[in-house]
Amino acid sequence: MTSATAAATNAIQHTHQQQNEYMKGFHDLLKIPSISTDPAYKAEVERCANWIVDEMKRIGLRNASAIPTSGHPVVYGEWLEAGADKPTILLYAHYDVQPVDPLALWDTPPFEPSVREGRLYARGVCDDKAAVWGILKSVESMMAANGTLPVNIKVFFEGEEESGSPSMEPFIVANKDMLKADLFLICDGGFDPGNPEQIYAVRGIVGIEVTVTGPDHDLHSGMFGGVVQNPLHVVGKIIGSFHDEAGRVQIAGYYDRVKALSASEKANLDALFDPQIEDLKKKAGVSHFWAESLGTLAERGTALPTLDVNGMWGGYQGEGTKTVLPAQASFKATLRLVPDQDPYEIGRLLNQHVQQFASDTISIQTRVSGEGWPCAFLFEGPVVDALNQSYFTTIGKTPKWMRIGGSIPISGMFQRELDAPMSGFGFGAGDNYHSPNEYLILDHFRDSMDTFIHFMYKLAEPGVVS
Amino acid sequence: MTSATAAATNAIQHTHQQQNEYMKGFHDLLKIPSISTDPAYKAEVERCANWIVDEMKRIGLRNASAIPTSGHPVVYGEWLEAGADKPTILLYAHYDVQPVDPLALWDTPPFEPSVREGRLYARGVCDDKAAVWGILKSVESMMAANGTLPVNIKVFFEGEEESGSPSMEPFIVANKDMLKADLFLICDGGFDPGNPEQIYAVRGIVGIEVTVTGPDHDLHSGMFGGVVQNPLHVVGKIIGSFHDEAGRVQIAGYYDRVKALSASEKANLDALFDPQIEDLKKKAGVSHFWAESLGTLAERGTALPTLDVNGMWGGYQGEGTKTVLPAQASFKATLRLVPDQDPYEIGRLLNQHVQQFASDTISIQTRVSGEGWPCAFLFEGPVVDALNQSYFTTIGKTPKWMRIGGSIPISGMFQRELDAPMSGFGFGAGDNYHSPNEYLILDHFRDSMDTFIHFMYKLAEPGVVS
Repeated sequence: MTSATAAATNAIQHTHQQQNEYMKGFHDLLKIPSISTDPAYKAEVERCANWIVDEMKRIGLRNASAIPTSGHPVVYGEWLEAGADKPTILLYAHYDVQPVDPLALWDTPPFEPSVREGRLYARGVCDDKAAVWGILKSVESMMAANGTLPVNIKVFFEGEEESGSPSMEPFIVANKDMLKADLFLICDGGFDPGNPEQIYAVRGIVGIEVTVTGPDHDLHSGMFGGVVQNPLHVVGKIIGSFHDEAGRVQIAGYYDRVKALSASEKANLDALFDPQIEDLKKKAGVSHFWAESLGTLAERGTALPTLDVNGMWGGYQGEGTKTVLPAQASFKATLRLVPDQDPYEIGRLLNQHVQQFASDTISIQTRVSGEGWPCAFLFEGPVVDALNQSYFTTIGKTPKWMRIGGSIPISGMFQRELDAPMSGFGFGAGDNYHSPNEYLILDHFRDSMDTFIHFMYKLAEPGVVS
Repeated sequence: MTSATAAATNAIQHTHQQQNEYMKGFHDLLKIPSISTDPAYKAEVERCANWIVDEMKRIGLRNASAIPTSGHPVVYGEWLEAGADKPTILLYAHYDVQPVDPLALWDTPPFEPSVREGRLYARGVCDDKAAVWGILKSVESMMAANGTLPVNIKVFFEGEEESGSPSMEPFIVANKDMLKADLFLICDGGFDPGNPEQIYAVRGIVGIEVTVTGPDHDLHSGMFGGVVQNPLHVVGKIIGSFHDEAGRVQIAGYYDRVKALSASEKANLDALFDPQIEDLKKKAGVSHFWAESLGTLAERGTALPTLDVNGMWGGYQGEGTKTVLPAQASFKATLRLVPDQDPYEIGRLLNQHVQQFASDTISIQTRVSGEGWPCAFLFEGPVVDALNQSYFTTIGKTPKWMRIGGSIPISGMFQRELDAPMSGFGFGAGDNYHSPNEYLILDHFRDSMDTFIHFMYKLAEPGVVS
């Protein structure tokens, strides 16, 4: 047993011994309704931030404070006394929670934590107060058991994740020095010892809404058809121009910054996705998938950018026939972006593409919005090895390393503004995120903390974080 | 003065002398609410038919009867005693009328005929009871003044024109012998001595509603975009495929049966349409017209077929973003057809075109309906000359001979089923067709009857109707 392993074991033992005490504090945290989307809860979000600051101070973090933003406060604390030869790890989680509607479907009140059959029920218990509490209690145990931490840490808890993080970009830009670190660990996700997964890449996003205007009022298509250009036809031309027959997006420059998967990453992802193809077809309700010549399911679903029209409308939509040539027609679309696409650049290219269809009798109004950056965490190398080993030591298996097709804007924002490698770690050992009866399986939560503590000690080993 | 001219003049004098008497009967006809679309008025439509049959018998038409159909009765009468050397003219009009809504906007009740400042107000007074009455009273006057008619006539009054003529095609097919004639005169239109027009061609029509189905339920586009084919994209591809950049319809075979305008017809129409271009642009609310390389305004607006999407819908149409990949998307379109296009054949070609976009994961349901035949009446030759002369004799000018972009399905049906040349004649010397306060200008109505009587005598001259 190395001394690092021994130190981890000591810290883990401490968490187990303190479990009852730690749970009391967790219940207190869960009782604070820190719902960030609802202005009625603004004071509760602030109370939660201050409660966490007090806890940070109690366990020995330095400079603990609730830092005001234009929205909800950021909770920050640090401990930088591990030594200059040790890496600095920024630990991100969020202390705000989703709304509770529909309240009637909760078996016990969402802000009165309740344990039933080994599960702790409360709003935010997985998402993401498990991470807030798991980080703080791991730090407390490491300190208590060993008198020090293996690495330098900066703890950054956001209060706006569930409301779109409107203040985060200016906050990060204004506090780059404070947030500087050798590794960012985004602690917002699940922990499932039965089927462990590490999500290491998410896509970015950008949206567009397009309104095509022709004549200044609706016309009779029997009278003006073939003489006046029909906005519905122009919308058809635009949407029809977005993909070639193979399914490849036809916007000039769209793929210029797309990084292809390496052979090893592709092989890993294919091995994970290919066995699910039939199940996914069933889930989607289709007999065949699309665009198969562009890549494997894993590539198309996670590593290639997409463009999907999400809605379109114009003219007469009722029963029977109305021979109208409408003044306007519209559609909206979202594009999922991958590293290293830039959502603002893609928004401009998209707008240019759409505007090509304007004419002397058709004007096109576009609104590009919702830009979110794509993001890729580490998925190979010594940090990944360290996390795999930590999992294996705790639960006897290593996680599947996955990319997903969806988006988590905050991580892309971090990656863009703060130049550090990133990884993810999840404490959310339960289910019903964003739904009634959100719960955490307490035994699995303990496993997540054990894994996290192992991971912290492994990150301290020379050469793991460069 | 030829004997024919003298006979016409005698008949016309008779109508003028009998004007008060004729108006009494007209009022009685107008009092019958023969609304064909509303089943509540079925008995009134039948009462109107029987009333007209009595009137036909009174003025000496033979075989007058109300012939049952699967809908409302056809009123038929004939007089075939002009001699075997005289042509047989079928005179078509309709005795049913539009509904009266909104009733509150009528200044006097729609079925209580009211004369104010030389105008006769009543529902159907122009459309098309003016023609029913104008024909019957002209016949009565010609008989009374001259003891005979100049031509053989078959009078055919429809009772379903305002409700889409659902029984007419089977009726015509079943009664071809009875309806056989040397010339068909469709008497359903206006008479304006200030700006006389003769519409001699209308377009046909066919409609399609298309539903594109992909997955069996709505999907998350962040998860399945790029993997599952999006029905909105397929609708875009279909609509985008309908026209080339010049505006020409891209359905295979679409133009195969389209008859080009002759140089003289084109010159006549261009001379009528070109001076209106700026006014029409203003009316349409556009700065430029479309598809100008395909032909002149007259050609595109009346002599070329068109395809217009009238509505489309699918996915999310609300505020903001919803990242949905919908299970279905739809559109509907109408096509305006020209001689000699066949709406049933075009419907099949259209369906074939749309079905090309089906795939192993996209099914396309189409519903083709509303087939109406295009129709072209005579627009040059001795019948046209005879009508021009009749106008000139009465009002000192000749009508403009016009094609229109709209559709009158019944005339195309006649043309297809009954192989005879056709012309049109309008008695509707007023305005507010299909609207409250429909009215007939009585002096102009008298002019229309005078013109009609002249026309009948001219049609009797050798070589006019071949």
